[in-house]
Amino acid sequence: MATLTSRDTDYSKWYNELVVQADLAQHSDVKGCMVIKPYGYAIWERMRDVLDAMFKETGHVNAYFPLFIPKSYLSREAAHVEGFAKECAVVTHYRLMNDPNGGGIVVDPKAKLEEELVVRPTSETIIWNTYKDWIQSYRDLPLLINQWANVVRWEMRTRLFLRTTEFLWQEGHTAHETAEEAVEETRRMLDVYARFAEEWMSMPVVRGVKTPNERFAGALDTYCIEAMMQDGKALQAGTSHFLGQNFARAFDVKFATREGGQELVWATSWGVSTRLMGALIMSHSDDAGLVLPPRLAPIEVVLVPIYKGADQMEDTVSALRRIADALLAAGIRVKLDDDDTKRSGWKFAEYELKGVPLRIAMGPRDLENGTVELARRDTREKTVVPVDGLTDRVRTLLDDIQTSLLTRAAQRTADTTHTVDSWDDFVAALDRGGFVRAHWDGTPETEDRIKDETKATIRCIPLDTPDEPGQCVRTGAPSARRVLFARAY
Amino acid sequence: MATLTSRDTDYSKWYNELVVQADLAQHSDVKGCMVIKPYGYAIWERMRDVLDAMFKETGHVNAYFPLFIPKSYLSREAAHVEGFAKECAVVTHYRLMNDPNGGGIVVDPKAKLEEELVVRPTSETIIWNTYKDWIQSYRDLPLLINQWANVVRWEMRTRLFLRTTEFLWQEGHTAHETAEEAVEETRRMLDVYARFAEEWMSMPVVRGVKTPNERFAGALDTYCIEAMMQDGKALQAGTSHFLGQNFARAFDVKFATREGGQELVWATSWGVSTRLMGALIMSHSDDAGLVLPPRLAPIEVVLVPIYKGADQMEDTVSALRRIADALLAAGIRVKLDDDDTKRSGWKFAEYELKGVPLRIAMGPRDLENGTVELARRDTREKTVVPVDGLTDRVRTLLDDIQTSLLTRAAQRTADTTHTVDSWDDFVAALDRGGFVRAHWDGTPETEDRIKDETKATIRCIPLDTPDEPGQCVRTGAPSARRVLFARAY
Repeated sequence: MATLTSRDTDYSKWYNELVVQADLAQHSDVKGCMVIKPYGYAIWERMRDVLDAMFKETGHVNAYFPLFIPKSYLSREAAHVEGFAKECAVVTHYRLMNDPNGGGIVVDPKAKLEEELVVRPTSETIIWNTYKDWIQSYRDLPLLINQWANVVRWEMRTRLFLRTTEFLWQEGHTAHETAEEAVEETRRMLDVYARFAEEWMSMPVVRGVKTPNERFAGALDTYCIEAMMQDGKALQAGTSHFLGQNFARAFDVKFATREGGQELVWATSWGVSTRLMGALIMSHSDDAGLVLPPRLAPIEVVLVPIYKGADQMEDTVSALRRIADALLAAGIRVKLDDDDTKRSGWKFAEYELKGVPLRIAMGPRDLENGTVELARRDTREKTVVPVDGLTDRVRTLLDDIQTSLLTRAAQRTADTTHTVDSWDDFVAALDRGGFVRAHWDGTPETEDRIKDETKATIRCIPLDTPDEPGQCVRTGAPSARRVLFARAY
Repeated sequence: MATLTSRDTDYSKWYNELVVQADLAQHSDVKGCMVIKPYGYAIWERMRDVLDAMFKETGHVNAYFPLFIPKSYLSREAAHVEGFAKECAVVTHYRLMNDPNGGGIVVDPKAKLEEELVVRPTSETIIWNTYKDWIQSYRDLPLLINQWANVVRWEMRTRLFLRTTEFLWQEGHTAHETAEEAVEETRRMLDVYARFAEEWMSMPVVRGVKTPNERFAGALDTYCIEAMMQDGKALQAGTSHFLGQNFARAFDVKFATREGGQELVWATSWGVSTRLMGALIMSHSDDAGLVLPPRLAPIEVVLVPIYKGADQMEDTVSALRRIADALLAAGIRVKLDDDDTKRSGWKFAEYELKGVPLRIAMGPRDLENGTVELARRDTREKTVVPVDGLTDRVRTLLDDIQTSLLTRAAQRTADTTHTVDSWDDFVAALDRGGFVRAHWDGTPETEDRIKDETKATIRCIPLDTPDEPGQCVRTGAPSARRVLFARAY
């Protein structure tokens, strides 16, 4: 088995190797597009199912809208077109033909589309064009719809899960009677994302609002959750947008109000993507491989027999099978690896690489004593425990791993969050990595200047930030409160 | 509420109206692409979840492969390119720009792709190009992978669910050591599809094998399930292909055999799509709207209060809520419609249109007597029954509806299946509609000629067809067994 480059040596290389070696994803021959391998997809499936249930609990239903968007739709909302019309996949023809000169198959010049189609980079435009038919009256509101889909944004520099040309995501698109209701929805979904990150991914996040510079193209306000990775760089893990009446105006979506008037509909949109896989990997994993929180792990417990000869094998495997059955009956996802062609040492390394939270090994002495060896993936602690009462012990340990991972990541985030008041301290803090809480004068010019000088961006204005007058760390101009800076993915 | 065109008047119009009025789907502004509305998507979600569980039970895992396929990949398998390279969406550019002449946004001519990308019409090529890296030895086999995805086949004439340019589907792609194993897999998945059609959709199907003319492009054998719709036309509901070594050869996928040699891998692929929605609709629905088998219905039971005045409303609604809670606790999907702005008559028609299998209504007399009115959607029978023991009765009735729908559809299929031996009888039987069992001389020429003359195709050679020598119904040439003809969707 190959070993990983250590995080200290080259964090970025470690990440790339880990994603491939742990069988999560790989680059495809199509530039910028990834193949999500079965093990990686199994994790994404769990994320999707959990999020989907959370969306449904909050009153949303799923639907499906077209992959293609007529080019002209993107131009309907002025800011949106600037943000999304540039780097995208453009379908110009609908037929191939045999090359009359014998050069294989070529585009049929006669099959040119009258209007080019863009592969959706996000679906606001096609969806609001449809909502026009669905919304007549306040009785049709709120409209609370989500879509699970693939989207394409042409990227020059890609990284598996973090930035790919095609990615999988969900996009919620809701319509409301009032601005207040829409803002409430925007915040509700931000909270859903934060809860998912913390309770399922064991990943602490900062909830905040983006500066105008960093807003979604077409939004009045963009809320986000930001997480701190192990290398001191931040990662935007989800966004929720208050779109005001911009898309309703662009697509002429009005409703009859309770008072008998006509008003433009208020909108939100919100999304998380396969980028969450990158965040999950970088939050917890170590030089031995992936570390997964049990609630998202496709396999929570792996059972590995250690034996010599067929007789010992049979006894050990059947003892482990009884344990596996009991765990399974308790609703725990288990795998018993009784493959006789692989050594147990190889298996240990393999399941460590794949981030299985708990390993149960049973050797000849365990078999005699009625014990097993339990090994936690997160702390790599090992203990020998009796088979009696094992199911309860495993349940408790899995819960403990789930919360320990959150605690550890929260501690790391806290340790690397610095409050600074001078430019020198600001630059030094950025170089150490982590979040930097600093004053900013509120102008996009200063924001851009800081970005140019340090590569740091304002990740968000955290929602829990108190008012606290101060001076901008760069210009000295007055500031009403601190904002959160970091270098970011 | 609009009423539907009757099936007798115009079956095709009835179908189109039903799909739209029952809120299942609608055409989008993008030619040939549909919007799947929340109610339609909820049915598809149930189908997907059930099928997904069946695939996993038979040892398959999910993965995800790129949306785009390099144009040259399609040419690698000779038959495949003929079948799929023609009508497809071609991405030629990756950027739009502001028109220098002020005409909005236009394709950036500088952003032309070196090699055009095709939006996947099916994924054999990109997947087998990936399998090349995944398969080295017999130990890597079998590889049992499924993908849920959107695909695009440019269609000139489209119909909601039945034939759309973009559709949703699953595609299984498996790799095996031997031809026997691959054929076994092909048949296993055909059986999964047939079981799903019969047990979940209440739709009887004929399992068979396609003639060479009707095979999937690149397959050695295509198995299919065929269902008979109410208008006497057949619908291919799912296919499972034995691909031999064609794709392994095209993409050079070899494995080290147990004997130490090198051999090309054996392949299968199999898929069902949102077309199943069309089959479901046309199998059971009537002039009042959709009829759904309970196991796939998003709402199995709707509860409607009938009352005058606020007091009666409150009493009736709370009585129904107790019933709804009891049904819910028994795992039944229910909806209590206590919307006071809609009349009960309107609600009755609405839930009939949407195919809710069972309606429970409670009026003032019911409230007094401790009874409710039960109405079956399939037979439209109504009975007044006591509230006592209602949950058990509902469970039994839902099961009965599920099996009655299958029985009714099986009876209809049997009634419209005719065995004929002369050309006149053949043509007459086709004109009456239904399956026609007839002898065929086994040549593609005769098959084409019959198709030209009657618009009927050989749906399949049913797997349970006995050997039975006879004469081709068209040419009189010898035939070894009967095949199944029909006009088809």
